[in-house]
Amino acid sequence: MSSHHSTAGQIRARIRSGAHQGHTAGQAPGMLQCNLAILPQADALDFLRFCQRNPKPCPLVGVGDTGDPMLPTLGQDIDIRTDVPRYRVFRDGAFAEEVTDISALWTQDLVTVALGCSFTFENALMRAGISVRHIEMQRNVPMFRTNIDLTPAGPFSGQMVVTMRPLHADQIDAARTISARYPQAHGAPIAVGDPAAIGIADLGQPDYGDPVDIRPGEVPVFWACGVTPQNVLRAARLPLCITHAPGHMLITDIPEDAETTIYKNANQLGVKT
Amino acid sequence: MSSHHSTAGQIRARIRSGAHQGHTAGQAPGMLQCNLAILPQADALDFLRFCQRNPKPCPLVGVGDTGDPMLPTLGQDIDIRTDVPRYRVFRDGAFAEEVTDISALWTQDLVTVALGCSFTFENALMRAGISVRHIEMQRNVPMFRTNIDLTPAGPFSGQMVVTMRPLHADQIDAARTISARYPQAHGAPIAVGDPAAIGIADLGQPDYGDPVDIRPGEVPVFWACGVTPQNVLRAARLPLCITHAPGHMLITDIPEDAETTIYKNANQLGVKT
Repeated sequence: MSSHHSTAGQIRARIRSGAHQGHTAGQAPGMLQCNLAILPQADALDFLRFCQRNPKPCPLVGVGDTGDPMLPTLGQDIDIRTDVPRYRVFRDGAFAEEVTDISALWTQDLVTVALGCSFTFENALMRAGISVRHIEMQRNVPMFRTNIDLTPAGPFSGQMVVTMRPLHADQIDAARTISARYPQAHGAPIAVGDPAAIGIADLGQPDYGDPVDIRPGEVPVFWACGVTPQNVLRAARLPLCITHAPGHMLITDIPEDAETTIYKNANQLGVKT
Repeated sequence: MSSHHSTAGQIRARIRSGAHQGHTAGQAPGMLQCNLAILPQADALDFLRFCQRNPKPCPLVGVGDTGDPMLPTLGQDIDIRTDVPRYRVFRDGAFAEEVTDISALWTQDLVTVALGCSFTFENALMRAGISVRHIEMQRNVPMFRTNIDLTPAGPFSGQMVVTMRPLHADQIDAARTISARYPQAHGAPIAVGDPAAIGIADLGQPDYGDPVDIRPGEVPVFWACGVTPQNVLRAARLPLCITHAPGHMLITDIPEDAETTIYKNANQLGVKT
């Protein structure tokens, strides 16, 4: 485990120094990577309520103190202003800029929220011998808007975005069982089969990402997607909101198969469990 | 499932009318019961952060809107002012009164937080044939203060309180596996074996609840306990805080084995999973 930890820390150091500004997929294998939402404290209580009410698209794995850029519950010396390779800045819901450092934007009323991402269960699927099509094809995962209403909280509401991975019918039960073990990473699928049942017109035309082949005998399987909170945040038109840029995640010191997403929690205080 | 739902709803109706003011253990079997914390909005963001950072003692399963006594994410027509059999009211951290209805105390700045409780994993242990000693002995579970520091948030900090259940050495792995399936109900044990390792001097003298027999070949197994947030809330000396009275829980419409603790969530919108 210590080699994993140092690897995640080493990558964060390279990101912080500007030496790594690219995607994080495949970096620090086995360590939890996170989607990111930074927003003013005035909206943080409602956003945490929103995440709690929509745990499949918005699995809450870490929350910073107001005004504090450090995230001690997610790892050693994580400074959210510098330790993500690429950020997107939104003002009043409109895209403003993409940057590699948000130190100049940080203020004393910002709250960082870290959300789990699909890398975790994709890695688990692949370890179990279930191939993930978009990775096989070296594409981005196909993502679709659906008609599934989210449970609202304050200014936050909308419909769920899902990812789609085609699987052979006889792989679906295993994929469900495996992904259900990762509630911190979208959990079990939201839907299996008919895309029209969740408001998707054409699997060949994803709303985000790339289309992938669906081969004979395969069934589309849909998981809740981390683009959901990003859309919801934009629609809420907060004065300022900062997210990670797609694929450029926060790499934590939390093992993907940890029981909780809290670094050095009671389980790690030298108490044998 | 509908018979479970009506049963939970029927019990809540009896509680609301004042016909049931007693303990809720064993009521509406299979449905999630919750610990309760009601506090002013000014402290709610920090308290949610505290729960997120201490998920084993404080498993967050529901949060109400500010000023709204209804909890639609936990079930049908749940009014938190009337639907718990017995409440405790604290002012500036001091016990003020025990009541069966908090309608007169409700204000527009209160936020309800519902936390999972140990009934859920105890039921699962018993279904698996693992006897739970304090239930066998018809006593309250023994609870102990420990030296395990919680991860602080704002005014909330302290040490973890744990429950203890003695198990045969050959039952421990199964008990760990079973309880780990219920992160919404304290999850896997915090510690197994030597009580001194977590600061407990004498298993015969619990800080709360009743002592239970530990028989030859048995080992004490410790789980995080819902008294933890109650102590932490008292120590924070909030102007007003309302909790359930011990054993008098909120009975929800969420099945204990549900993947998420959200009522009628995306999984229940007619989408086949």
